[in-house]
Amino acid sequence: MVQIEKWGMLELTFQGKTDGNPYMDYWIKAAISGEKEKVEVNGFYDGDGVYKIRFMPSHEGTYSYQVSGNFADVFKEQMRGEFTVTPNRPENHGPVRVRGRQWLAYADGTPYHSVGTTCYAWTHQKEELQQQTLETLRKSCFNKLRFCVFPKYYAYNETEPQLYPYQRGESRGQDGEKTAKKIKLSIAHKKEPEDITDFDCYSFNPAYFQHLDQRVKQLMEMSIEADIILFHPYDKWGFSTMKQECNELYLRYMAARYSAYRNVWWSLANEYDLLPQITTDEWDTYGSLVQAQDVYGHLRSIHNCIAFYDYTKDWITHCSMQKNDTYKHVELTDQFIETYRKPIVWDEIVYEGNLDAGWGNISGQELVRRFWEATLRGGCAGHGETFLHPEDIIWWSHGGVLHGESEPRIAFLKKIWDEAPGGYLKTVAGIFDEVVAIPEYAEKTVTWEYSTWADYELHYYGFGRPAFRRFEFPEDEKFQVEVIDTWNMTIQDAGIHSGTTVLELPAREWMAVRIRKV
Amino acid sequence: MVQIEKWGMLELTFQGKTDGNPYMDYWIKAAISGEKEKVEVNGFYDGDGVYKIRFMPSHEGTYSYQVSGNFADVFKEQMRGEFTVTPNRPENHGPVRVRGRQWLAYADGTPYHSVGTTCYAWTHQKEELQQQTLETLRKSCFNKLRFCVFPKYYAYNETEPQLYPYQRGESRGQDGEKTAKKIKLSIAHKKEPEDITDFDCYSFNPAYFQHLDQRVKQLMEMSIEADIILFHPYDKWGFSTMKQECNELYLRYMAARYSAYRNVWWSLANEYDLLPQITTDEWDTYGSLVQAQDVYGHLRSIHNCIAFYDYTKDWITHCSMQKNDTYKHVELTDQFIETYRKPIVWDEIVYEGNLDAGWGNISGQELVRRFWEATLRGGCAGHGETFLHPEDIIWWSHGGVLHGESEPRIAFLKKIWDEAPGGYLKTVAGIFDEVVAIPEYAEKTVTWEYSTWADYELHYYGFGRPAFRRFEFPEDEKFQVEVIDTWNMTIQDAGIHSGTTVLELPAREWMAVRIRKV
Repeated sequence: MVQIEKWGMLELTFQGKTDGNPYMDYWIKAAISGEKEKVEVNGFYDGDGVYKIRFMPSHEGTYSYQVSGNFADVFKEQMRGEFTVTPNRPENHGPVRVRGRQWLAYADGTPYHSVGTTCYAWTHQKEELQQQTLETLRKSCFNKLRFCVFPKYYAYNETEPQLYPYQRGESRGQDGEKTAKKIKLSIAHKKEPEDITDFDCYSFNPAYFQHLDQRVKQLMEMSIEADIILFHPYDKWGFSTMKQECNELYLRYMAARYSAYRNVWWSLANEYDLLPQITTDEWDTYGSLVQAQDVYGHLRSIHNCIAFYDYTKDWITHCSMQKNDTYKHVELTDQFIETYRKPIVWDEIVYEGNLDAGWGNISGQELVRRFWEATLRGGCAGHGETFLHPEDIIWWSHGGVLHGESEPRIAFLKKIWDEAPGGYLKTVAGIFDEVVAIPEYAEKTVTWEYSTWADYELHYYGFGRPAFRRFEFPEDEKFQVEVIDTWNMTIQDAGIHSGTTVLELPAREWMAVRIRKV
Repeated sequence: MVQIEKWGMLELTFQGKTDGNPYMDYWIKAAISGEKEKVEVNGFYDGDGVYKIRFMPSHEGTYSYQVSGNFADVFKEQMRGEFTVTPNRPENHGPVRVRGRQWLAYADGTPYHSVGTTCYAWTHQKEELQQQTLETLRKSCFNKLRFCVFPKYYAYNETEPQLYPYQRGESRGQDGEKTAKKIKLSIAHKKEPEDITDFDCYSFNPAYFQHLDQRVKQLMEMSIEADIILFHPYDKWGFSTMKQECNELYLRYMAARYSAYRNVWWSLANEYDLLPQITTDEWDTYGSLVQAQDVYGHLRSIHNCIAFYDYTKDWITHCSMQKNDTYKHVELTDQFIETYRKPIVWDEIVYEGNLDAGWGNISGQELVRRFWEATLRGGCAGHGETFLHPEDIIWWSHGGVLHGESEPRIAFLKKIWDEAPGGYLKTVAGIFDEVVAIPEYAEKTVTWEYSTWADYELHYYGFGRPAFRRFEFPEDEKFQVEVIDTWNMTIQDAGIHSGTTVLELPAREWMAVRIRKV
C-alpha cells in the first residue's frame, strides 16, 4: 500500500481526455476519508492527457479515496484506492496556522517565527539564477518567501520570463478596456512596453506549472513557506486584466494544484490597490473562492501599496502589510493587532538597498531595527534587498545572492525569538521609549511608582542610545540580565541582580536587554 | 538729549518709597509718545528704593514721556522728559515677529531662521559656568535659547541655585494643597527632596532679576533670542504651586521688567501638562495677561510634554512643540501648519546624548535629520544635548560646553537656509519619500506623468540612501544641480542640466540636492 507521511503529499495521476479544452471541459475530483478526516479535493489537468489529484493528510492512519469525473470511463480501474499515512518526520511540522489571536504556529504545535524575504519574480529567471537563489535561501535564516505566479514587468524587470503560465496564441480572456488601463499603470513606472504577446487565458501552460511545482516543493524541503502572490499590477501581458471568469478559473486551478503543499500561503495580491480594475467585491469573491477551494485552510491575505485592505474580512487569516507611512509603521504593530485581531505580518517595510525610490533604499541597520520593533510588538517582519546591480539582478525580484548586511542580524533576532519561553511574544508598556516584550502567558505592570516583572523580558531601545538603565527589581527575587547588541550580534552576561539595579550600557543604537527570573 | 537706537532700550530710574511691600503697594508707569508710536508702559521696583521704567522704541525720531505713580511726590522733578531714537545698528534687527502664516522675521524685515538650543537652568549655575555657556553660545550657530526663570529640581539638577527669584523667609503665597501635589510630581522622577526653603511669593529678590537682566542683555548682544520659560514643573521650592494672585504678580513683574528687551520671547510654560494644578483657564488668563502687559507683542507660546496646547488660542503667536510621539513628529510639521496656521517651532525633539531616558539619547545624525525635516517642511527645530558628565554638567540644563556632533551640522543647514531665495521655505509633494522645499513665493506640481519646477528647490532624502535620482527637467531650461551631504557638510557641484537627468548620489543617508534654475 502507498505510504505517505502526515502533511506530506499524495499525488494520483490519471490519463484522460485531450479533446476540446481540458482545463474547461473536464473535471476530476476525489472523496478522501481517513479516521479523523474526510474531504473532497479537486484535481487538475497537467497537459498531455494527464490529470492529477493531490492530497495532504493531516492525520496518521489508513485512508481510502474514490475518484470521480465527467470522463470517468477512461480511468475506471483507478477509481478507488487506499493509502497509509505514517508519522511526520521531525523536520515536517505541517502547515502554518493562526494560533490564538495574533500568533502563528505549525500544525504540530511548534511556534512559527516568521522571518520572510521577497524574490517576486525569481521563478521567471534563468535556471542558473534560480539555482543560486535556492542556494542562498538554503544558507539563510529565512522561513518564508514571497513570490509571484505571473511574470513581472517593472523597473529592472524588462526581460521576458522563461515560461508563461498561459499558452500563447490568439488573445482570449483579457479585457480590452482594462488592458488599456494596465498599460497606463505601467507607464507610471517606466517607458511604455513594446512587445505585447497574446495569451489564451482559458488555457494554462503545464510546463510553467510543473516548474512552479518543483520550486514550491524545493522551498518545502527547506522549511520555507511559499507565500504565493496570485495577482499583481506589474504587468504588460494582460494577466492583471483578465475577465473575472478567467481569474476564477485560474484560482481554482491554483487551489487544486498547490493546496496539498503544506508550505503554501495564499497572497491574493501584491499591492492590490494598484489594480483599480479589480473591485473590493471581486477581491472578496476571489478570496472566498480560494478559501472554499483550499480544503486545508492555508493562510490567506492580501497585500497593500498604500491603503490597508479591510483585514477583518472572514476570508483573511492574517494581515500582510506594507508600511503605509514613511516614518511610522511597524511601531504600530501592537495597535494593528488590537484593530484587526489577527497576526500582523509586515511583508514590506522598505528594502535594504540603494535604489532611487524610497521603498528600496534603507540601511541594514534600519531594516533590522524595524524587524525588532515588529517582533517585540507581537508581529513579524519581512526582508527584501534592492542594491543596484550591473546586470539588474536584484534579490527583491530576481533572487541571486545577498549583498546587504541585515540577514545575519535577522538570524540573530530569530535565535533570540526561538529561545523565548512559550514561543510567543507580546508587548507591554515600558519606561520612556523602550519596547518591552514578554511571553504570551505573562503579565507586567509599569507605573511611575513601581513595576512588576515577568519571568522573561526583552527590552529594546531602538535608535535610543542609553548609557545606562535603571531596573527596580524586587529585593527578594533574582534576575539574570544580559546585554544584547542587536547589530554586532553579541550577548553579554551582565550578572544576576536583585533590587535597584543600574545597568551600564554602551550608549550605542540598537541595544536590547534580556532579563530572566532565576 | 538722551539718544537710544531703534529697538534699543530706554531705562528711566527713580528713587521711591520703601515702606510696606513696594512690589504690591506702589505702582509707577510712563506714557510714551513718538511720531508713530504711543504706549503706556509699567515700571517695576528693583529694590533699595529704586523704581525703573523700560521702553523699547520701534521708530526713529523724537519721543516724549510722562511718568505717573501712586507715590509721585517723591520723584516730581523727573516726571517728564524727551529722548531721541536713532537708526538701529545693522546687527540690531529688532524683535522677531510672525510673518505671513507660518514664518518668522525680525521687525526690520530680515527673515529669522530659528536654530535654537536649550539650557534650562544655566542662569542658576556658578558664575564661571555661566561665562563658559555664554562663550559656547558666542561660537555657536544658535540664535535662540530656552531657559527658565525659576530654578530647576530634577534628575542631574539637585544643587541649589545661586539666587532665588523671591526673598526667603516666612512662606507666603504658596498653596499648601498644591504644594503636596508638587512634591508627588517630583517623586515621579526622583527621590523626595529633603530641604524645602520657605519663600515669600509677594516679595521678589532684586539681585536675582538684576542678574537675569544681564543675561538677557548678553544674549541680545549676541543676537540670540531669549525664550524665557515663565513656569515649569521641576520644582521643590513651591514656585510651581503659587496662588493665582502670586502668579499674576510675577507675570506683571516679568512683563514690566523684560518686555523692553527686543530679544525676549515668552514661553508660558515648559511641559505645562505636568502642572495639572494650573487649569487651562488659568493658562489662558496668564497668556492673555502677558499679551496685555507686553506692549511690544513679543512672541508668546506654551510648551507641552505630551498633549499639545490648543495653539489656535488668540494669545499664542506660534506653536512651541515637544514631539508627542517617539517615531513621527517633525515629519508632520507641514500638517501642523495647516492645523494651527501659525509658525511651528519644535523646541524639543529629543536631545543628542546618552541619558537613560528616551527624551535624551539620540545620535547627532538623528537630531540633524529632524532639523532638516522640520526646516524643509516650513517650520524650525531646537537643539539640546544630554551627555552624562562626571560633574553632572549637561548642556540641556546647565550649559557649559558642547560634547555632541550636531551643532556644526545645524550651522551648515542654517547657511543653506539663509541662502534660500526670499528667505522662507515651504514644502510641496515630492516623488516617493523625498522632502521637497521651495521658496514661499514659488509653486510646484508633481504627478506621475510630469512635474513643474520652481526656480529653487531643496530635495532631502533623510534615512533613504538613493544611489541616483532621476529629474525630468524641461528641455528648454537649465538647472544648476548641487549634491549636499548634510552630515559631512559638503556641497558638490553636479553641473548644469536640462531634460531627463540621472543624478548619481553616494547611496548614503542624509543627502540633499539643491536645484536652481539658471
